[in-house]
Amino acid sequence: MSETEFGLAAVYRIIKKSGAERVSDEAAEELRRILELVAGQLAKQATELSVHAGRHTVKASDIKLAAKTILGEE
Amino acid sequence: MSETEFGLAAVYRIIKKSGAERVSDEAAEELRRILELVAGQLAKQATELSVHAGRHTVKASDIKLAAKTILGEE
Repeated sequence: MSETEFGLAAVYRIIKKSGAERVSDEAAEELRRILELVAGQLAKQATELSVHAGRHTVKASDIKLAAKTILGEE
Repeated sequence: MSETEFGLAAVYRIIKKSGAERVSDEAAEELRRILELVAGQLAKQATELSVHAGRHTVKASDIKLAAKTILGEE
């Protein structure tokens, strides 16, 4: 995924909320990059699961199973 | 994380980009929930790593090591 979808300010706030005193711009950019990578992997797997189930619509159950497969229990 | 940080439209676009014909609202909400959960886990680990390194600033290297630890190679 080359374009960014998530706002950098949102990612920055998430890191601050975790207790960080200061957050470098590069840290927020790196977390965004990783999250968009993970999002793409999960979305791709979920779409494959929906097709496998004979559907044209990606449902929450596809996302849940993709997360379980790729990330382990969530 | 109870508040949402990422826009639902952004999450929806990511799922569409993966080739989905249609995406249920619940699917986009579930992917957002999972991504914010992962983001919180990575941020917490990265902040701990920055403190461990004697810094007050979370850097990209903290995020990278947290992702490697929690998600495996990225």
